[in-house]
Amino acid sequence: MIKKDGYSRARLGRIDTDHGSFSTPAFLPVGTQGSIKSLIPEELVHLGVEAILGNTYHLYLRPGHETIERLGGLHTFIHWEKPILTDSGGYQVFSLAKLRKISEEGATFQSHLDGSRHLLTPERVVEIQRALGSDIAMVLDECIPYPSSYEYVKTSTSLTTRWARRSLKNKRENDPALFAIVQGGMYRDLREDCAQRLVEMNFEGYAIGGLSVGEPKSLRREILEWTTPWLPENAPRYLMGVGTPEDILDGVMLGIDFFDCVLPTRNARNGMLFTTTGKISIKQAQYGDDGRPIDEHCSCYTCQHYSRAYLRHLYLANEILSSRLNTLHNLHFYMEWLRRIREAIREDRLLDFYKTYSSHRKEGEAERSAPCQA
Amino acid sequence: MIKKDGYSRARLGRIDTDHGSFSTPAFLPVGTQGSIKSLIPEELVHLGVEAILGNTYHLYLRPGHETIERLGGLHTFIHWEKPILTDSGGYQVFSLAKLRKISEEGATFQSHLDGSRHLLTPERVVEIQRALGSDIAMVLDECIPYPSSYEYVKTSTSLTTRWARRSLKNKRENDPALFAIVQGGMYRDLREDCAQRLVEMNFEGYAIGGLSVGEPKSLRREILEWTTPWLPENAPRYLMGVGTPEDILDGVMLGIDFFDCVLPTRNARNGMLFTTTGKISIKQAQYGDDGRPIDEHCSCYTCQHYSRAYLRHLYLANEILSSRLNTLHNLHFYMEWLRRIREAIREDRLLDFYKTYSSHRKEGEAERSAPCQA
Repeated sequence: MIKKDGYSRARLGRIDTDHGSFSTPAFLPVGTQGSIKSLIPEELVHLGVEAILGNTYHLYLRPGHETIERLGGLHTFIHWEKPILTDSGGYQVFSLAKLRKISEEGATFQSHLDGSRHLLTPERVVEIQRALGSDIAMVLDECIPYPSSYEYVKTSTSLTTRWARRSLKNKRENDPALFAIVQGGMYRDLREDCAQRLVEMNFEGYAIGGLSVGEPKSLRREILEWTTPWLPENAPRYLMGVGTPEDILDGVMLGIDFFDCVLPTRNARNGMLFTTTGKISIKQAQYGDDGRPIDEHCSCYTCQHYSRAYLRHLYLANEILSSRLNTLHNLHFYMEWLRRIREAIREDRLLDFYKTYSSHRKEGEAERSAPCQA
Repeated sequence: MIKKDGYSRARLGRIDTDHGSFSTPAFLPVGTQGSIKSLIPEELVHLGVEAILGNTYHLYLRPGHETIERLGGLHTFIHWEKPILTDSGGYQVFSLAKLRKISEEGATFQSHLDGSRHLLTPERVVEIQRALGSDIAMVLDECIPYPSSYEYVKTSTSLTTRWARRSLKNKRENDPALFAIVQGGMYRDLREDCAQRLVEMNFEGYAIGGLSVGEPKSLRREILEWTTPWLPENAPRYLMGVGTPEDILDGVMLGIDFFDCVLPTRNARNGMLFTTTGKISIKQAQYGDDGRPIDEHCSCYTCQHYSRAYLRHLYLANEILSSRLNTLHNLHFYMEWLRRIREAIREDRLLDFYKTYSSHRKEGEAERSAPCQA
């Protein structure tokens, strides 16, 4: 950690990995199946991306972690030389797979691609991420629906905690850094208990999982308020699958170091574009003759060269370039947002930064979080 | 014209337009709806592309030539500063539109997008291309099916010739260069007659249309042999919608200066990749573990950084990046092919070049041409 904010729990830091380090607070774009959809790595670097996420579930099923290992690991395979975090697959087993069954041993499920049966155990998930050659690996956890009863969450969180211990036991010397995942649903005591148990095991970092599953945003903030104080100061903290620019700012102020979310890239493909004055849907008829860029204050490639009218045309014509230009813009917006957050922490004015932007968001306050993972 | 080949009708040249000039023999990638699918203009320039084609039919229907004109013309709209050739829409009326009806006045048809009714006349087609601000405009022609009877082709070619005269009459001083289109089906006398009549009208360039519609390749070569001698030496010659690398070489040797075709870009999206030793289909299982680039002799971005295994994975996973990386490779292959043809003409060794590559193509000789336009 480089610096702590004086008025919030925000932290400025840098996380070191075998493939270089990245500045925090950070946002990791999601490369679900081995590509940040539509972009090449050189563009990501140009956007200021310092680390990306890969999905273990997807890569395990296709092309297979063993194939990727034979071809030199995920970095070589996808031509990305900077840090890669891989998730555990737990969330996708919960959200994508068919006929899943959770037992003490692990998670049995059917592939959403071909119906083939698979068993992911905590040990196997560590092995898969080892084969992928990721820099930061996540333990297998059970992702539970929202809402869930106290009893169910208690049982599940206890299982997740036992799985974390088994994961750690299977870790080898040159393995990726292994991060635990704090679960506990929306229950304060379960969150606190889970955090304490995991911290006792001494992981290299801690994620907070099971959020952004439909809960009110105010509840998510409460959970972060309860949880982050239990996590060690000197270990990175990762809020999984979150979120909007405002959600990220909230998370930073509550002590989170980094985030991942499909929102900027998925929204881009759906024609939803972030601007400094709010989101716009590029397909709207009002942009048909609009010669202005998406955002007149934006310095991204798309805004430098193309009009809203052209982007609307590409979207309506279902042109591949639509996804690409929109993704460039939205990721630029996110990277710029994080850069400004880091700058504000560095210059001791995060609270002012927050106040400036919280005025925009009154109406979104009661919003429920939308699932935002791949 | 810079140079004529001593052993064939091949010509080395340069075509000047208001947006710069391009070297011939040239290949123009097709930007059907205002984008060369998946690529940005800077990439095209890097690939050596000096001119592109836009489809009048598509742009007229969506977003509309008037919208594009209001936004500063097609060059500004799509952020492409080099020459643009627009076709007349005749081919798309023939291949895409519904309920088309050809009369002396023009072509009535229903949009393939929304069923709306439209009339394209020779005059209107000139006006649309003027509004788009293209550098080279094409006259409206009737594209006829293959095979067609002598009587039908004769009547149609006569109409196309009358339409050409009306187009020329509607041309204004600062309009795009206007090219006529030689039709005449597969009949020598009709081709020769059409060419002579059009040349008498003194167009700025001449295209050969109505080929690559399913006729045997040997017949296409014959038609070029009959037709090009009737065209003036000092005017550019354009073979529309052709074709494979071998087809292009044939055309060059028969006196054609430039070509357009969706083949390299469409094939790319279908996973068909050109290599110096033939085409490969990247989806094949044999590439699943193949760490080699598409073509070990290729210097394109894709071949410098990615394996066949990764490209196969992207294709099977339906990733947008698949289309992009494959398009970069295939267009590189085409641009490199044209560069080598120009070099061979310059160095008086086109015949050797032809002999080297004609040995590859014996089995393709009886192949029928496939429609290759957007």
